[in-house]
Amino acid sequence: MEHVTLPAAHPLASGQTTESPLVRAYQGERGDRLPVWFMRQAGRSLPEYRELRVGTRMLDACLDPALASEITLQPVRRHHVDAGIFFSDIVVPLKLIGVDVEIVPGRGPVFAQAVRTGADAAELVKIDPATLDSVIDPITDAVGRTVAELAHLGPDSSAVPLIGFAGAPFTLAAYLVEGGPSKDHIAARTLMHADPSAWRALMDWTADVSGRFLRAQVMAGASAAQLFDSWAGGLSLADYEEHVAPASARALSHVHEISYTVRTHDEGADPYRERRHVPLVHFGVGTGELLAAMRDVGADVVGVDYRIPLDEANRRLGGDVPLQGNIDPALLFAPWPVLESHVREVVARGRTAPAHVVNLGHGVAPETDPDVLTRVVELVHELGA
Amino acid sequence: MEHVTLPAAHPLASGQTTESPLVRAYQGERGDRLPVWFMRQAGRSLPEYRELRVGTRMLDACLDPALASEITLQPVRRHHVDAGIFFSDIVVPLKLIGVDVEIVPGRGPVFAQAVRTGADAAELVKIDPATLDSVIDPITDAVGRTVAELAHLGPDSSAVPLIGFAGAPFTLAAYLVEGGPSKDHIAARTLMHADPSAWRALMDWTADVSGRFLRAQVMAGASAAQLFDSWAGGLSLADYEEHVAPASARALSHVHEISYTVRTHDEGADPYRERRHVPLVHFGVGTGELLAAMRDVGADVVGVDYRIPLDEANRRLGGDVPLQGNIDPALLFAPWPVLESHVREVVARGRTAPAHVVNLGHGVAPETDPDVLTRVVELVHELGA
Repeated sequence: MEHVTLPAAHPLASGQTTESPLVRAYQGERGDRLPVWFMRQAGRSLPEYRELRVGTRMLDACLDPALASEITLQPVRRHHVDAGIFFSDIVVPLKLIGVDVEIVPGRGPVFAQAVRTGADAAELVKIDPATLDSVIDPITDAVGRTVAELAHLGPDSSAVPLIGFAGAPFTLAAYLVEGGPSKDHIAARTLMHADPSAWRALMDWTADVSGRFLRAQVMAGASAAQLFDSWAGGLSLADYEEHVAPASARALSHVHEISYTVRTHDEGADPYRERRHVPLVHFGVGTGELLAAMRDVGADVVGVDYRIPLDEANRRLGGDVPLQGNIDPALLFAPWPVLESHVREVVARGRTAPAHVVNLGHGVAPETDPDVLTRVVELVHELGA
Repeated sequence: MEHVTLPAAHPLASGQTTESPLVRAYQGERGDRLPVWFMRQAGRSLPEYRELRVGTRMLDACLDPALASEITLQPVRRHHVDAGIFFSDIVVPLKLIGVDVEIVPGRGPVFAQAVRTGADAAELVKIDPATLDSVIDPITDAVGRTVAELAHLGPDSSAVPLIGFAGAPFTLAAYLVEGGPSKDHIAARTLMHADPSAWRALMDWTADVSGRFLRAQVMAGASAAQLFDSWAGGLSLADYEEHVAPASARALSHVHEISYTVRTHDEGADPYRERRHVPLVHFGVGTGELLAAMRDVGADVVGVDYRIPLDEANRRLGGDVPLQGNIDPALLFAPWPVLESHVREVVARGRTAPAHVVNLGHGVAPETDPDVLTRVVELVHELGA
């Protein structure tokens, strides 16, 4: 640790944590508490969520600060997880800057116009990503409300950190090019090879949109941020490195710029300070072959899906990267002894890594019994103690 | 090679090949011609297919011997590929033995009843898989007609081999348990862990249904057989090895039992003979982590999807397994120079393996221009010469 006095950096919001079990684990430290949260913990598995959402369309819910905040808080209150994950959708920043997109229940995001050609891409990227900053209020407002509430929801009224949420450039671009969800992202992968410069322009643009969206959440009080590259697992390593990684690095650079100063030692009148950036997590499904490349774009923590065990993920990452994951969400439907044994194994394998934040290897399925999630949290906290 | 005289084995059908470029490559030999065919070459990319299918539902087409045969032959005539792949669907054997399933256009197979519990599985497996043998005529008839036509469709009127087609037990079971297509196969993976004995019974049953379906095609004249485990890539290696591989081995054992005798040397009155079985190919999407396990169930050849390069697949398999694959089907929509360069690279990397059958890393997308496929065949044949 360098003993230098750093200039003032981003002041922390009240409720923005630097020493919570989650943030410490994301920074590679093992503490007394093994942190746990669940991807898609805020959502359809909770009856209180389904009740709140009646009559409100998905994107309207994401853009209603009170609603988005309440939905984010519900699983924290219920499960006593170690983090809130900001309730949003990867297309929210696109919607905000005027892209015509709707989320169709049971199908996913559907765009009025697919970006199939270089000309389509050139038209889209005319929208200045900086526009987002002027229309981001519903998001920063929601984050602010959420962080204020989270400030006393942890053990002994401690603060529970909020994790910011954004889709990675490839996943956003895949939706844009396909015009909606697709199985193989054939159109996106075609554009990538058929017109690499149009692809690059589109990816740079989605990177700036996505990065600004994440940055706004951090500035408003998120203690960490996760970039979701849902579809990256559909790519070869070569395609990922050449056609995707530069844009993901660009997205994360928007958040890397933000740093804050923490007092690390206090010796007399001259406190030693360290500047830190907000920890960044990077996750994709089926990305066992891409883990190191996904770290190399500037992630501090790598999320691992359920397909490969954490000790193997740790080996692939060289043994010095905090991991997040990787309970198989299918096991949440199994009898408790089967699930318990699986959770114990995940935690045991996670001990090979420098630090571990327990999570699922994919999102919570809507049919999941929320009581099972609560029980998993209790078990993880027992195991971590 | 052992110099023993073997008892008479399965007599070869006319048109069943043992020395075609495809079968020789599948047996690990490199010849003068680099064989190529395409998964889903028989199907919606061809206008002559779309014309034939007007007014006929998918499963009805599969069960009409004249139609299934003609559809199988269409891409061989058009593209001059080195194999026909029997036109069918993985649910065809289930339909034949009385399971209530229909293929819904744009969605896939949909079952009247999902097999969600151990009791459901127990009810289903009461159907004796041997029933299939008494209702298989539409399939063997179609194979017989196809093989007879293929007998002179190759260069210099040589025979083009037919490859038999079946879905692997896991993929069949996943459809049965989900009741249709699903994104994560959560219900199937839950049953696997929640009730392993019911899962095993279901898998043994699907293995026998699938194995008998493949066996019938080989007995009727197929020169090779491919087991498609479309969804295996959704599994961890541990789950695959414990809960899937035994059933896949059981499915393939139905075909391993069939052998034929070839004359390998002819010295005087005592010809040396060798008994061979029909080569078996095993393929799944996103199975880079499972390649060795998928060979170990008894496959002679491993199909590789587009995500990992063939030299890496060859390394993972220890360097002694013939490979099939792995042109990225997305590149079929790219400008020709981009596609040509990709095909050349696939062929170059394939040269690291003992033998290589060029194919796609996934099925032909319906929107593919068939002329591009023909051009790829011509290029592969030029490169292989």
